[in-house]
Parts: sequence; structure tokens; C-alpha cells
Amino acid sequence: MISKHMAPYMEGNKTVRAMFELGKNLAAEIGAENVYDFSLGNPNVNPPEAVKQAIIDILNTEDPHVVHGYMSNAGFDLTRQAIADNLNQRFGGEGAHYAAKNIVMETGAAYALNVVLRTILDDEDEIITFAPYFLEYANYVRNYNGKTVAVPQSPETGFQPNLDAFEKLITPRTKGVIINNPNNPTGVIYTEETMTKLAAILKKKEEEFGTVIYLISDEPYRELVYTDVKVPFAPKFYDDTIVAYSFSKSLSLPGERIGYLAVGDEADGAEELLAALAVTTRVLGTVNAPSLIQLAVARCLNEKVDVDYYKKNAEDLYRIVTEAGFEAVKPQGAFYLWVKAPDGDDNAFVNAGIDCHIIMAGGSGFAGPGYVRLAFCVDHEMILKSEPAFRELAAKYF
Amino acid sequence: MISKHMAPYMEGNKTVRAMFELGKNLAAEIGAENVYDFSLGNPNVNPPEAVKQAIIDILNTEDPHVVHGYMSNAGFDLTRQAIADNLNQRFGGEGAHYAAKNIVMETGAAYALNVVLRTILDDEDEIITFAPYFLEYANYVRNYNGKTVAVPQSPETGFQPNLDAFEKLITPRTKGVIINNPNNPTGVIYTEETMTKLAAILKKKEEEFGTVIYLISDEPYRELVYTDVKVPFAPKFYDDTIVAYSFSKSLSLPGERIGYLAVGDEADGAEELLAALAVTTRVLGTVNAPSLIQLAVARCLNEKVDVDYYKKNAEDLYRIVTEAGFEAVKPQGAFYLWVKAPDGDDNAFVNAGIDCHIIMAGGSGFAGPGYVRLAFCVDHEMILKSEPAFRELAAKYF
Repeated sequence: MISKHMAPYMEGNKTVRAMFELGKNLAAEIGAENVYDFSLGNPNVNPPEAVKQAIIDILNTEDPHVVHGYMSNAGFDLTRQAIADNLNQRFGGEGAHYAAKNIVMETGAAYALNVVLRTILDDEDEIITFAPYFLEYANYVRNYNGKTVAVPQSPETGFQPNLDAFEKLITPRTKGVIINNPNNPTGVIYTEETMTKLAAILKKKEEEFGTVIYLISDEPYRELVYTDVKVPFAPKFYDDTIVAYSFSKSLSLPGERIGYLAVGDEADGAEELLAALAVTTRVLGTVNAPSLIQLAVARCLNEKVDVDYYKKNAEDLYRIVTEAGFEAVKPQGAFYLWVKAPDGDDNAFVNAGIDCHIIMAGGSGFAGPGYVRLAFCVDHEMILKSEPAFRELAAKYF
Repeated sequence: MISKHMAPYMEGNKTVRAMFELGKNLAAEIGAENVYDFSLGNPNVNPPEAVKQAIIDILNTEDPHVVHGYMSNAGFDLTRQAIADNLNQRFGGEGAHYAAKNIVMETGAAYALNVVLRTILDDEDEIITFAPYFLEYANYVRNYNGKTVAVPQSPETGFQPNLDAFEKLITPRTKGVIINNPNNPTGVIYTEETMTKLAAILKKKEEEFGTVIYLISDEPYRELVYTDVKVPFAPKFYDDTIVAYSFSKSLSLPGERIGYLAVGDEADGAEELLAALAVTTRVLGTVNAPSLIQLAVARCLNEKVDVDYYKKNAEDLYRIVTEAGFEAVKPQGAFYLWVKAPDGDDNAFVNAGIDCHIIMAGGSGFAGPGYVRLAFCVDHEMILKSEPAFRELAAKYF
């Protein structure tokens, strides 16, 4: 017998699972080669060879008691130091000056976000995020009895956050704001201008309410960028920033669950916060991020997956979809193409897609009704082959 | 600024950390070779060579997209099937008949317990456990707004659970009972007789209250046994059992965070419960247990660390401590020797130990005041060398 509070989680799971199962069933029926499945954000580019070499080298040369053993709840010092150095090297010009103590290794960014929310939320505290958003955010906030407050999506600004609406939603109970940059599901990069204004609003509200509002910057897609637009370094704009990073996408290691939190010294109560994040890491049950892969990523911080592959996918899928007549946001980063449902009904659009053997995720599932999400971390050939299917889908509408 | 609810976690952390820091400082002062540190349950025996070979072989032969990729939230099917088969093979005579669907891979047993508690607890629901107990249990229960109800320790039964006291503490809000077998911190194995009686009480109370009470059997030390006493297979005694297992100790992989939950078909609402455990695994943030090590343990289910090393440690430490004049529980399993503070004051005993360069963990930290815990997963030579120090400590009391 599961608890009463589990119901909304189980319900949400059904929505996603239904889509996934549909694609699988369709593939079984008509052959996988005839199904254009854009439902899942599962990286399809292999990890850099250096990751494999790092793991084998560590196993062959390091003390197994260290490699597979407990360490500080915050992670191996050498990994934290390597990450701090790497961040300073890349973002020193934007104010990065981390030490090992500023980094807490986590079992992926999703767990990292849970750790942050557990650490800063009391019952009924509020977390603001910008629609459309990765729907798990709402689950994570609910885990700690917080309230998710969503800023409505703003197609009129090209899905940059609507900062006027945002400002009005901040209250004395606002403990944090989650941004996801580049964004899942829109593929949009929040600009320097956005970040400057957003930071100014937060500072103003902190002063007005006498509170601390953390900016939680969820950055699993930081390295996956397909334009010249630079992903702003969030701590440059706002002192009370907590960066949540994952190697799932940049090194194609989503199953390994490895990432980190970074908190600069200038953040409010940084020392206490960092200590608490480490304790929460232990107390929520993972104790520490997995050890061998912690050591491996420390050796691969300058490695990257083949971003050009994704870029080609982004460009070709955008071209195919828009040439078929649909309106879409040109992907700047991440894995996703955000497409407008021609008549504004994303559920109907998803179903019409299925009739053409195209599997898409409805935007309502991301608090972005009226749109659908197409994940383009798929085989490039499949994208090219999908062109007639998108034309067929367009013929149903136009 | 951390949340108000974090205070008790941070406080608890200080107690443990203080001990650890003390040992480190003392080692820096007088040399590590002069400190007898029995504070931490960190396995000191190396993992079997087969683990290294399995990892390297997987990296060299399997598809990296699978090895490091997402899978079902419950884990790789092949790993779950291998574990089910292994359990059936070992415990088939005691009723084990698992399939892959009965196993959910978790990021260690501590996370597995969090997943269970998150899945079954509503606010103010109660979890019973037997003192002395692994203190994190209380933190895990608190994470989900539950209440920990502790059955007082029972030295009179050799630290087998006091089942009369237990029965009186069960209420309609009791959602689960956590046992830890072999036990940390006492090293005691709960007997078949204990399990039979405990199960009968639970069944009676389920009927009386019309509720479901899960027996949560936390078994990281299952394979570490130093006597002929067999660790009872909990599901044999009680249908509504959830087994939480970790490979941290049996394969010396504590840093890797790999374990599982097992729920038999005969457990109440097994199908819904298993589905919910998988969803909770995702929603609490780890998404899935780390992938490469999932594949590796599937190949190493018949491997074991050198248990004889620990056995020798257990015997020698027990001999040294009791010959010095202290009263201790003879360890049957796990990593720990449970020693009575001669005057009943465990804090004073810990401090007296420090004066003799012996680092022990106070039993109060395990809800077992009047006792101390000595972890013997340490270098065997250190144990032998500690004999004069224990005699010196004894001289302070007798």
C-alpha cells in the first residue's frame, strides 16, 4: 500500500510512460525503421573515448580501496579541486574563483536539485520557475513540501522569461528561482540581458523583503550550444547563485549519474550552505556521488561529445519541420525543438503525429500547452527520413 | 540561508564528525601508527579482483551507449534478472521466487531506504526500529515527515529485539518496521525464533488494525557472518517484507553506491508498490542506479570479499577487549563490537578511550547509551597492537 501523497507522482508518470510505450508498440507493429521517435532526451552520441581510457587507467593504477571507497560526503577532494580549477580557467573572466570547498559532487543534476531544495525549503516555501519547464522540477519541490510557482511562457519574447510577470510572483516565501539554461524544452539560451534584469529584480526583492532568494541554475546542457550565443555564467550576474551541473549530456554519461553543485563564497551564508548541502547529500541517501566515475570525470573535464552531430541534427530537423509549414523555435542549445501546435491543441497534435508515425512529447507535460517538444538527440538518418512524415502531418492542418 | 528543518541534521552531523576529526588530529599529533581508530565502518578489505575485470571487460566489449546510458528507472533488466536468479538459487528453499520485476536497483541501501520511506509514509506515520540502531534511520524517516519509534535496547536478551515492548508500540499509524540483520552497531544476528515471533506480532497487528505494516529488512551485512548462525531470510517469515541490500560491504564498494530493493509477489500491493518504488527512485533525483556498476555487479553475484579477514579481526578484538576486563557482545556478523561502558557512561568511556589513543563511537549516537561501538573493519595489525591500550583503559576503571 503506497502513501496518499504518491498519487500525483504516479499520475504524472503515466503521461510520460504512455508516450514511450506508444512509440515502442508502434515500432513493434510497423518496424522501428518506420517510426520517427522524438520523445526522449537520451543522448545518442557516444561518450568520448577518453572516459573509457580514464576508467581503465584508474582501475589499473589506483588503490582500489580509494577508487571504490567512501570519501567525504561532498566528494573526492581531487575531483572537486579539478572542477574548481576548470571553472576558474573557463569563467575566471566572468568572476569564477572557486576552490575545492565550493564544489559538492552529486549523483547527477536531478539529485543535486533535490539536495538544494531539501536544504533551503521549509513547508509552504515557494520556488519560482519559468514555463515551459522540465516537469520534474515540480516533483522535486513537492518532495519537500514546497510550492512551485510558474511564470507563464512567453512566446512573444522568443521564450525568454517574462520578467514583469516574474517580479509580481516573488513573495517573502520565495526561497529560490530555478532556471535551466540552455532550456529544456525550448532549446532557448537565456541571454546576458535576461540575466542582468533577472538579477536586478532578485536583488531588489531580497532587499524589499529582507530575505535570501537563491538563483538555482540548472545547466546540464551548458556545453551543447549550436549558435554563437554564449551561455551566460549565472554567478557573474547574481551572488546568491547555486549552479547545478551534470556530465550526463556533455560526456554522454546519463546512466552514470554524476554531476555537482557549485556555490561561490559571495553567496549568502556560503559556508553554512555548503556544509548543509554535503550533509543533505548523505541524509537523502546517496551518501556520496559514485566514486569511480567521480575520479574519471576529473580526468575528462576538457573532453566533450561530438556537439557538431547534434548541431547538424538541430539544423536539419528545424529545416524539415519549418519547411513543412510548422512554426518552431530555432534551437540554440540543448536537445530540443519546440514546435507550435497549428491549432493550439498540443494533445491533438501529438495524436496526429502518431498517425504519421511521429512520436512527440506534448508541451502540456512541460507546462507549455499549445506546443510540442521534439528531442533531436537521435540518429541523423532518422531525421532526414522523417521529412515526408512531417509533410504528411502538415497536410492534416494546412 | 538554510531552512529551519535542517538544524537537527546539522547537529547530528557534528557529533559524528567530532569523533572523526579527533582521530585525525590525534594521528597528526602522535603519528597514525599510535592511534587505534575504531570509529568508522569503512570496509578495509579490497574488492574481489573479479569486479575490476568485469568493469574492464564491459568497457571493452559492450556498447558504450548502453553501458553509460539511461535505462528503466528500476535498473537494467539483465541486472535485475541476475539478482532474482541468484536470490532464488540461494534462498529458494526458504521461499524466494523472484523475477526481474521484483527487483529495483538503487544507489546503495541508504538511498533504497529513503525510496521506501518516501513511497509508504504520509505525514506523522510511524516507523518502528530496535535500539541500538543505525542513527541515519531517524534522519531518513524525518525526511518524509514520519515519526521514528524506537524499541528500547535489550541487553538481557543478548540484544535480540524486545518483542513484548515492540508489540505495545505498534499503532494504526505504524507503516513499517526497520530491522538491520546482522545488526549495526551490536554485531548480533536476529535469530529464526526472533523472526518467527516478530512476524506473528506483525500479522496479528495488521489484522487488528486492518492496516499494512511493511517489514523493511536492511541487509548490507548479510554476507559478513562469523559464526554458524544463519541470517534468516526475512521474506520467509513475513509476506509484507521489503529487502534493502547493498554491495558496499559484500564486494567492498561503499563509494560506488550500488544496491537494490526486493519485493516478492506475496507482499501487499506488490505490483503497485514496485511501480511506485521505481517512480520514487526517479523523483527523489537519482533517476536510476549508476549504470556501469549495475552491469558489473550482475557479473559478480557469487563473489565475496575475504570474510575470514574480518572474522579474524572480530575474534582478536573480542578477545583483547574482554581479556582486558570489559563486557562485550561476541560479534556474529557485520563490522562491529558492542562494548559496555564499565560505569554506564558511554561519553566518559569514549573520552577515557581517547586518553589511551583508542577512538570509539559512543552508543548514545546509536540510541544505545551505556555502550560503545568499535568498528573492526581495520588493519589486523592495528587490532593486535591495541592490546596494551585496552589494558591501560581497563586500569582506569577496574
